[in-house]
Formats: sequence, structure tokens, C-alpha cells
Amino acid sequence: MFLKNTWYVAATPEQIDAQFADGAKPLARTICNERMVFYRGDNGVVAALEDFCPHRGAPLSLGRVTEGKLMCGYHGLHMGCEGKAVSMPGQNVQNFRSIRAFPAVERYGFIWVWLGEAALATPDSIPHLDWYNNPEWAFGGGHFNINCDFRLMIDNLMDLTHETYVHSNSIGQKEIDEVPCQTELKGNEVVTSRFMHNIEPPPFWKLALRGNHLADDVLVDRWQICRFTPPSNVHIEVGVAHVGHGGYDAPAAHKVYSVVVDFITPETDTSMHYFWGMARKFNPSDAALTDTIRAGQNKIFSEDLQMLEMQQKNLSTHPTRRLMTLNIDAGGSHSRKVIERLLAEETAQQNKVTA
Amino acid sequence: MFLKNTWYVAATPEQIDAQFADGAKPLARTICNERMVFYRGDNGVVAALEDFCPHRGAPLSLGRVTEGKLMCGYHGLHMGCEGKAVSMPGQNVQNFRSIRAFPAVERYGFIWVWLGEAALATPDSIPHLDWYNNPEWAFGGGHFNINCDFRLMIDNLMDLTHETYVHSNSIGQKEIDEVPCQTELKGNEVVTSRFMHNIEPPPFWKLALRGNHLADDVLVDRWQICRFTPPSNVHIEVGVAHVGHGGYDAPAAHKVYSVVVDFITPETDTSMHYFWGMARKFNPSDAALTDTIRAGQNKIFSEDLQMLEMQQKNLSTHPTRRLMTLNIDAGGSHSRKVIERLLAEETAQQNKVTA
Amino acid sequence: MFLKNTWYVAATPEQIDAQFADGAKPLARTICNERMVFYRGDNGVVAALEDFCPHRGAPLSLGRVTEGKLMCGYHGLHMGCEGKAVSMPGQNVQNFRSIRAFPAVERYGFIWVWLGEAALATPDSIPHLDWYNNPEWAFGGGHFNINCDFRLMIDNLMDLTHETYVHSNSIGQKEIDEVPCQTELKGNEVVTSRFMHNIEPPPFWKLALRGNHLADDVLVDRWQICRFTPPSNVHIEVGVAHVGHGGYDAPAAHKVYSVVVDFITPETDTSMHYFWGMARKFNPSDAALTDTIRAGQNKIFSEDLQMLEMQQKNLSTHPTRRLMTLNIDAGGSHSRKVIERLLAEETAQQNKVTA
Repeated sequence: MFLKNTWYVAATPEQIDAQFADGAKPLARTICNERMVFYRGDNGVVAALEDFCPHRGAPLSLGRVTEGKLMCGYHGLHMGCEGKAVSMPGQNVQNFRSIRAFPAVERYGFIWVWLGEAALATPDSIPHLDWYNNPEWAFGGGHFNINCDFRLMIDNLMDLTHETYVHSNSIGQKEIDEVPCQTELKGNEVVTSRFMHNIEPPPFWKLALRGNHLADDVLVDRWQICRFTPPSNVHIEVGVAHVGHGGYDAPAAHKVYSVVVDFITPETDTSMHYFWGMARKFNPSDAALTDTIRAGQNKIFSEDLQMLEMQQKNLSTHPTRRLMTLNIDAGGSHSRKVIERLLAEETAQQNKVTA
Repeated sequence: MFLKNTWYVAATPEQIDAQFADGAKPLARTICNERMVFYRGDNGVVAALEDFCPHRGAPLSLGRVTEGKLMCGYHGLHMGCEGKAVSMPGQNVQNFRSIRAFPAVERYGFIWVWLGEAALATPDSIPHLDWYNNPEWAFGGGHFNINCDFRLMIDNLMDLTHETYVHSNSIGQKEIDEVPCQTELKGNEVVTSRFMHNIEPPPFWKLALRGNHLADDVLVDRWQICRFTPPSNVHIEVGVAHVGHGGYDAPAAHKVYSVVVDFITPETDTSMHYFWGMARKFNPSDAALTDTIRAGQNKIFSEDLQMLEMQQKNLSTHPTRRLMTLNIDAGGSHSRKVIERLLAEETAQQNKVTA
Repeated sequence: MFLKNTWYVAATPEQIDAQFADGAKPLARTICNERMVFYRGDNGVVAALEDFCPHRGAPLSLGRVTEGKLMCGYHGLHMGCEGKAVSMPGQNVQNFRSIRAFPAVERYGFIWVWLGEAALATPDSIPHLDWYNNPEWAFGGGHFNINCDFRLMIDNLMDLTHETYVHSNSIGQKEIDEVPCQTELKGNEVVTSRFMHNIEPPPFWKLALRGNHLADDVLVDRWQICRFTPPSNVHIEVGVAHVGHGGYDAPAAHKVYSVVVDFITPETDTSMHYFWGMARKFNPSDAALTDTIRAGQNKIFSEDLQMLEMQQKNLSTHPTRRLMTLNIDAGGSHSRKVIERLLAEETAQQNKVTA
């Protein structure tokens, strides 16, 4: 069961446009167990439909997009963005069955989709991303498809002690383990923070310091502030500052400040889409630096894949086995409780509606 | 559930002979959920048995054929064509369990198998193929294994409007969509016909016209007469004639006339064997033309594969969802009803026997 | 269901050491449906644990071994050989959940594991292997992972008539089929013997004769004495002697005498680990001969793989179908009965304990 009355990142605009460039094809993607098809409809506005032609069940994603209409590749039915057939050669489509259209919005460099009650799908509830179209920031990211329950990725990102072990050559260092983290619950937001002082920067942060024309051979203060917000977004303020300048609060000239951007979208019960990236607030005009950081992050997040997928296999083999929740797991644990509470509220609301 | 008291095409003689040439091996093939083994038994007559040695369950298809006996490759049991062991080193096989032998017949260039009551398996009920061993005709074909319910292929072949979309570069043209088809039910036979007049021949038919030494740059009349007969055979009279000569009824000198031959044999509930081919009644002695047409048909039918397999996935995901039956679907819809009626009759007959 | 209060071969020491050489990795292996991790713990003594970190279910086999402790690769928990966490950065592990540790012993060139009651796991019940560290013998072997019920491999090894068909180019010969075998039940041991006289040695035994500097172009006596012992070990005395010297009892100078060593360990209900080898009591110092024999055996046992895996598929498709038990199957049949009786005893014992 997944939260439905919420926005999930379904794709990047580039993914939709790359498909279109390849023969006017739409994009097939499964979100929360729903097989969907995404494309740009009238006036280039993104549309999301069930990937199921109402005529004979052919996948619409094998069709083509012509003038903002999605044409089924089997018998030529033209489907409108609202899920109603608009035409089909030799047919009167007026009484054709409709398929489901999902509210979809392109905003802040992502395509967002809503699986719940359409009337509640207000784009205003899409979280604002400060760095989008902002000259003070630069952003680069990517997309992985991972075979694990989406909550295992939330656990992963809300407890960064794993960096010491999984990412020992890039962002891991023993001080992460040594410095306790603090976890706070603020409404539906969960915040886990760790501040390390007078430490040597690990390789990734040396690279970032050089990228901001700062010395990489001096001690630094380092911070990690992980913020979970529903349904399954984790944004992490990260960075290092030369010691003696105020750490997290140091002036921009003495630090490298970034946000690790993680949108985690369930695909099925045991698989997920992972949209990752880094928004940085230093040397934003250096496109080569953006590429270098993206490549580094790609490598780092690849290191998590095998662990998460094997962890999923273990948990599927032992479905009733209880795990341990340590202090380092407080972030993930609170995030799961927020999801559970919201799910219960959604279910209660739905029962009221259908009663 | 599949019709049992009927003949299915199981293989081509060439497939059995190619296996034999490769070390006297028999041919393993699953038909209607039954794992079977095919080979030439006594006097080269085709035999079909369960692929299950009665001794320890080894697959007989891993054995070898020696002097018309199928020898199990595990412990040397020699199996006769009737499913009774004929010998085994050091054993008296008289009381050995039998396995099932299926009536099998080689006729008209195909191997036919019968899964129902053996007493009813009269070869006379195998449909006569006019073109077999007939100097006025030439035939070329092939075999695909496709992961979809066999009925999706019947739908495909009984509604040719899909040619406009799936085969747009070869046999598709907009006039197929524009000209309505007529569907008739004649006993257990379903016939869907479409006659198009004064149209430009699409690329495949230009090729065929040239193959019959006819001009390909003139307007033609085109016909498609799809005939379903149980259990799941679809033969389609197709062709074009230069305009002004009577269309379908034009003299041979002014047209290219063929039959698309489709034998559709269930393999499992969601997979099938597709034996396709084209019998043509023009320039039959031109072997190179046979090869060219076979290659063209191979390419055309390959275009259907992805659509059919993805359609099957969609239907398996939504098993209870109702599809639409339009006028263009009348041929497939009537064919399904014939199958359902015959299945009900077969079940009733069986219940009477076992009562 | 598998016998639990017994020793199974889980691995060879070389397999554990090869993993360690590759970055201090432990060895993941599933035994009787239990996912386990093997490594050398304190003082190099082999340890076997559940492959499940008690913290969050990560597979410990993705971790590393440092100073005899297995460190989880996710969050750095250090696991002791008894299944109790010994440390974790920033954590007091005293009340951590334990995981299961399995008694494991390195003996006679194999790693043995015990899945039952630990108190009963006396290494003395590991079968003694005469040839281990014995200058009169040489041993070479290998490991296959095969997708079939382990009992199908017992059947295979306790009825060697299959050699005539499956291994016709190496150890098979028609006399195996022609000479009846004798099967005896001695407590939990099952012995099937066959003695063939005045026969031509097949290719593998010609090679062995030459390996012992004996003529390979003379007639021989040949013997096969298959011994099943629980849980699933089959050792086969095999060899040939020049005729006229007493056959099986001939002096060493006139024969080649070996033991085919087969440890069969269930992996899952339909897969197994097959540890095979040959211990020979002739020309033991010839290492090249050991390699030649190992290569020959590897090729021979590879010939069984497809048959066993396809047999399993057939049996899984027809789970209720009764097979035949011929005289040649007496060895396998008695072995299965021994296993069933011991399983019933184990279950009864367990019910008494838990009552």
C-alpha cells in the first residue's frame, strides 16, 4: 500500500523528450504498481495515462505521439490527455470506455504524478526546489531503478553511518560513526543532523573544495542534515567549511555547501525509482564541475545498489523477522511512522467517503 | 482449457528431420500444456509421445532414435510409438507403465497432433491444403514461438486494420481503415472480407506484382478474405489486381493471388506456436521469389511480436478488465465464440462419457 | 524437509580461502534452504553464521573479515563466531539480537556444517576419509551446483547402468547393463555392487591403466561398489584389474583401484551442491595424473547435469505421478527409505523434546 494523495517524481523532462526524439515514442513507466504512459500532449503539457488501450488492452506506450495525441500502435485509436478517445478511423468514439488519466505536472525540472483523488491534486503542494532556475545554484542528477522496497532507501539516506562502510573511498570516514546524530520530528518532517568538527575532508569533499578554489589540505568542519518529507523525499544538506569560520554557518567563501536531492518513488512493492542529484551553492557556472560531481555521485550511489537489493532478498526470505532500531536508525524509523500515520489517515478518509 | 478433439499443427517435417540429423535426436515441443516428444518411428512414420520416461521421469527428448525406436538417454529404455516400452537391458518390460501416445499424422507439409480421444482422431478431418504438391502453387513459411494467449493472434489476423499501424511500411495503407469489412458466420467458419478499389498498392504488393511480371505503378483493386476455422486456423485470401479486370475475380494474368496461411497452436495458457506462410498462385516456379516473399513475411510478422507479448502482459495484469468489441473485432469475436461453443460441447460430451 | 542432526559438506577450504584472498570477503552459501556465510574466525577456525545482520537484515556475506571478526558491510557491526555482535561503532551491543551460528568443522579437506541441535554436533561422527593426508592415496575433485532435488543425484550414483547411456564415451559399456547388481542394506548403509569379468576396459579405465604403467590393451575384471551413507554421501569403489589376478582382490601391481567420492548437499528443495572427486590408490605422487583424472571426471559429471535438471523439471510438472522402481533402482530406493526413516526418527525426537 502506498500513499496516493501526494506527488511523486515520475520522470525527468529529458527522459520524456528523449523518447519522443526516438520516433515520437511516449515513455512507459510503472509507479506504485500502476503501468503508466507519459508524453507531452496538447501544447507540450505533460500527460500521464494508464498504459492500456481501452479497445483491446494494447500498451499505449508502443504507440506514437502526433500533434499532442497519443495514437495506439495497434489499431490507430487516438487518445486524449484526459483518458478519453478522441478519434479512431471508421469509428464513433463517443461511447468508448475511458482509461484513467493521472494528474501530472512538470515543475522544477521533474515530472510529478498524483495517483489519488484528482480533485485534491493541487500543484501548490509540490515541494519548492530553491535551486531550480536560480543562478546561485547548479544541479546535476540521475535516475536508478532498484529492486528493493522504497523504504529501505529512506532508511539508507536517513542513517549516514553507512557511508563509513559502503562509501569508504569517497565520502565515508570514521568520524561519521563517532559523532552521534540528533533526530527531530517536526510535524511530517523528520530531521537527522550530524556536525563533525576539526576533521580531514574525505576524497569527495577534497574534490568539492578544489572545485570552489579552496584548499583541500586543511581541516574542516562537516555537516549532514537529512530531511525526510512525505511521501518519500529525502534532501540532505551537506558540506564542509575550513575550520574557524563557523562551520555550517560559515560565509560562502570559506565552505562548499550542497543539497543531496533524493526523490524515491515506489515502482512495485519491491522495486523503486531513485531520482538522485546534487544541488550546489558554489561555483555554479562551472559545468565541468557539475559533470564531475554527477559522475562521483553516480559511482557512490551505485555502491548502495547491491547492498539494498540483497537486503531486500534477505527480508523477503524472512518476512516476519524483527529488525533492530538503534539510535542511528531514528531518522528512518520516524520517517516510516510518518508514512504509516498518513496511510492510516488516507484509508480512514477513503472509508468515510465510500461509507 | 483447449479444444482436444481436433488436429493441431505441432511442427514441420523439416523440424523433426533437422533434429534427427543432429545426432538422431527427437524433437521436444509443448502443445496445449503437454510436454511432448516427436520423432519418426517405424518406417519413418511420425510418432508423438509424452516427454516422460515411465521409469524415472527422464525427458525422452534427451534420448536418441535408433531404428524407429526412441531410446531414453538415461537408462536405455526403448520406447515404442504406442507409448509401451519395447525393451530395456536386463529388464522384462512387459508390465512397465505406459505413457501416453498422441495420434500424429504427417500431411500437407505439416505434422498434426491430436490431444483428445484417440478413437475420434480421423486424419480425414485434417483440413485439405490445396497448394500442397500442386504445381500451380508455391509455398514458403516459418515458425515463431510467441508469449501470448493464442486467441490474441486470432484477433490479430481476423482484424487487419492493424496493418495500417503495425505494418505501415509493407502491407499497411489508410484504405484498410477506410473501407468497412463484412463478417459472416458459416457454421464453425468465420469469414471477414474487405474489398478496396482503385488504390495504390503498398510496397509488399508492388513487390508481388513485379514478381508476377506485372506493372507496379498502376492502381489496383485489393482484397482480404480472412477465414477462421477451428481449432485456431486462419487462412487469408489476399491479393491485388490491376484495376478494370474484375478485382478478386480478375483473370490470373492481371492479378497476384495468395493465401496467407496461419496455424496457431497453443503451447501454454500464455504462449503459442505460430506457423505462418504464404501460398501463392502466380509464378510458382520462381524459387527466389518464394524466398523474397518469405523474408518479407518474416519481417512483417515479427512486427506483431512485441505488440502481442506486451498486450498479454497488460491483460495478465488486469485479468478482469472488460475490453471493447467494435465492428472491426467481429471476426475475432465470432471466432472466440465458436471456440467457446465447441469447448462447451466437448466438455458436455466428456461428462456424458464419464457419467 | 532435510535431515538436520548430521554433517553436510558445505564447501572446500580452498573456496573459503579464495574468497578471503579477494578482498577479505566471506563465502555466501545456501545449505538446506538456510542462507549462510562461511569464513575463518578467531585463529583461522571456520565459522558458519546466518547470512543476516541482526541490525537491519543486510547480508553479512557482503561484509569483510578483519582479524577473525566478520564486519557487516552496511553499518560496521562486528559479528562474533557465536552469532553475537562483539562491537559496533557508537553502540553498546550487549543486548543486540543474536543470529544463529552453525557448528562447522574443517576436516579431511572439507568444511562440514551441522544444521540441527548444536549439543549433538560431535565432530567424531564426521565420516573418516582414509585417503586424507595419506601418502598411499591421491585425491582430486570439484564442486557443481545443480538444479535438482538432491535425491535424484543419489539415484543417479546408486544405479550405474546410466553410465552406458550418459557416459558412453568414457566409462560406459554394455556389460554394465548385462551384469546384474546386488543391493544390500547394512543398518543405515546401502551397498550396490556389480562385478564384471573378462571385459574390455572403456576409455577412462584405459587411461587409468596407463597412468599406473599397466597395459591397456588386455581384458580386465571391473568392479563398482556403491555405498550410500546418510545424510547423502555416496562413495563408490571402482577399478579394473588385468584378468587372472583376482579382480577386486588382485594385488596392487595388477590393478587400478579408486574411490569415487560424492558428497551431495541439499541447497534448496530443488537444487543441490555436488562435491565430487576421485581418491586413487595407485601412482599417488603423479600430480599430472591427478589433473588428468579430475578433468576426465569433470567432463563425465557434466554429462549428468542436463539430464538431472530436465528430469527435475519433468517431476515438478507431474508431482503426483508414480515412477517405477526396478531391480537396478534398489540402491537408490533403499537409500531414500533410510533417509525417510531417519527423518521420521528426527521428527519424533523433536516432538518429544518440545512436548
